[in-house]
Amino acid sequence: MTANDPLSERDLIALVEAGNWKLPAHVLIAPGDDMAMLAVPGSAILVAVDQVVQGRHFVDATPLDLVARKAVARNVSDVAAMAAIPLATLAAVVLPRSIGLDGARELLDSVRKYAAEFKCPLIGGDTAVHQQSDGPLVLSVTILATPRADGLVVTRDGAQIGDRLIVSGPLGGSFGDSGQGRHLTFTPRIAEAHAIADRIGVALHAMIDISDGLGLDCARLIDASTRKCQRMMQARLDSRLIPCNAGMLIRHALGDGEDYELLAAIDWSVAIPDRWIEIGSIIDRPTNDPRSVVVRIGESDEDATNLGWNHD
Amino acid sequence: MTANDPLSERDLIALVEAGNWKLPAHVLIAPGDDMAMLAVPGSAILVAVDQVVQGRHFVDATPLDLVARKAVARNVSDVAAMAAIPLATLAAVVLPRSIGLDGARELLDSVRKYAAEFKCPLIGGDTAVHQQSDGPLVLSVTILATPRADGLVVTRDGAQIGDRLIVSGPLGGSFGDSGQGRHLTFTPRIAEAHAIADRIGVALHAMIDISDGLGLDCARLIDASTRKCQRMMQARLDSRLIPCNAGMLIRHALGDGEDYELLAAIDWSVAIPDRWIEIGSIIDRPTNDPRSVVVRIGESDEDATNLGWNHD
Repeated sequence: MTANDPLSERDLIALVEAGNWKLPAHVLIAPGDDMAMLAVPGSAILVAVDQVVQGRHFVDATPLDLVARKAVARNVSDVAAMAAIPLATLAAVVLPRSIGLDGARELLDSVRKYAAEFKCPLIGGDTAVHQQSDGPLVLSVTILATPRADGLVVTRDGAQIGDRLIVSGPLGGSFGDSGQGRHLTFTPRIAEAHAIADRIGVALHAMIDISDGLGLDCARLIDASTRKCQRMMQARLDSRLIPCNAGMLIRHALGDGEDYELLAAIDWSVAIPDRWIEIGSIIDRPTNDPRSVVVRIGESDEDATNLGWNHD
Repeated sequence: MTANDPLSERDLIALVEAGNWKLPAHVLIAPGDDMAMLAVPGSAILVAVDQVVQGRHFVDATPLDLVARKAVARNVSDVAAMAAIPLATLAAVVLPRSIGLDGARELLDSVRKYAAEFKCPLIGGDTAVHQQSDGPLVLSVTILATPRADGLVVTRDGAQIGDRLIVSGPLGGSFGDSGQGRHLTFTPRIAEAHAIADRIGVALHAMIDISDGLGLDCARLIDASTRKCQRMMQARLDSRLIPCNAGMLIRHALGDGEDYELLAAIDWSVAIPDRWIEIGSIIDRPTNDPRSVVVRIGESDEDATNLGWNHD
């Protein structure tokens, strides 16, 4: 994808968010965060949908079991980003005719297996078959979640000036040389999300999962928080602090995406929780500076705002 | 689709339901009904997913606005079948590259418009683009609903021996000569579902929407209810009573599908509510009779069990 693509992810996301202003009051969190949240009588529920498409999100040679795993796991990662509790999943799948009944069974059995493993049992689905034998496999997963017992729900728009920015693990190189890398086998950071929420509570101001790249996802957190508190923010990252996976350079950590680690903004006054790594902080954005995310590399400040995978 | 198709809808549905026996207790209604139902703290929520695929559920010439309408409306029809209250929708779409940003905007704006019209606002989505310019458009809609204030939720498996079978309107010919028929413009029977639930309450034993054909959907209601009460049931329909759309024959009414009228089984002792049409009743199935649905046509009893559109 390039910035000039007629169907860029940024444009498509904007289409989904276009009607937010007219949503009714029972929509507690509108499109634009990792999950939406709805009031239901006596309770609240979070929900999101995310799909994987053959040739876009996985290569043809990917085993069906790992296609299913990725589709479920990236939805669970959205639940982690809200510090919510997985509840259930539904799957809609469009199958190439060539997959056969055995292939269809393997795929759905794997969806069911991973949904159970991640504590969000498969409770519904819809299957269709392409007319062409080789139409691309599409697997769309809807995930439902509930808020924690303490009611804390962590959005991406709660960051404040002075916050520390922390990540839950090393970044970069997830896709792998042949497309069979960690993006197929990662562990969604549910445990880490609840550990930090337990530890620091409302000092956990904002959180997002790093699906498209640290630069791009950090910019989303900064831009959403800027809109929310009506004060221009800027993330200042230090390249020496950003943890890279083995063999990866800082540009991979900033732009590769598909890491599914968490990025959080926490109050400056609290200690960095175990296993989390501080990578920078949030400042008042200088006047006339358009950059949401700036990373210090050596002696220079580089714009990292658009570093990431605009995969639609 | 034929009975010998290696990927028949019946086989695919069985794959989704294969793991029902090991679902946890908070799944109140498991896969197999029009919607699943989940317990959430202090409440319950219903959820379903249903997709439309270009070439399968709509022809290429169908306006994007009506593609969006159908995808939303058939999900609302599932809500009607449970006599539940629409709450919100999410949409996952895979776009052909050739659709362009204007086409993508038209599609998503239409999804939003119809979701609002049917009182289930669009609260989330995911968009992807096919690598091939002409990959088929896939629009998958997830719908959330809540039970009525009186707590009544109508499943398809509650029918009893002696029940009357009634439908909410005329059947047959929905697809139309060129694929541009009523299946694109039907009104989901939400109002009718709540009117009958208000009127007869728990005497409304079972309900299903007629999406695949009266024969096939009636058999689903009969088979689910037979499993539930462990007593073999058979629907006896009278062809003279089945309402057909203008120009349609009884075989169209029985097998065309895409009507999205409701079929309900109500206690024999209550009067037929206004606007509903009685078409038959439920009896003990004769020993060694494999037929779930029998329709009286002239002097003969025909098997209607498999009359319907096994569209996967």
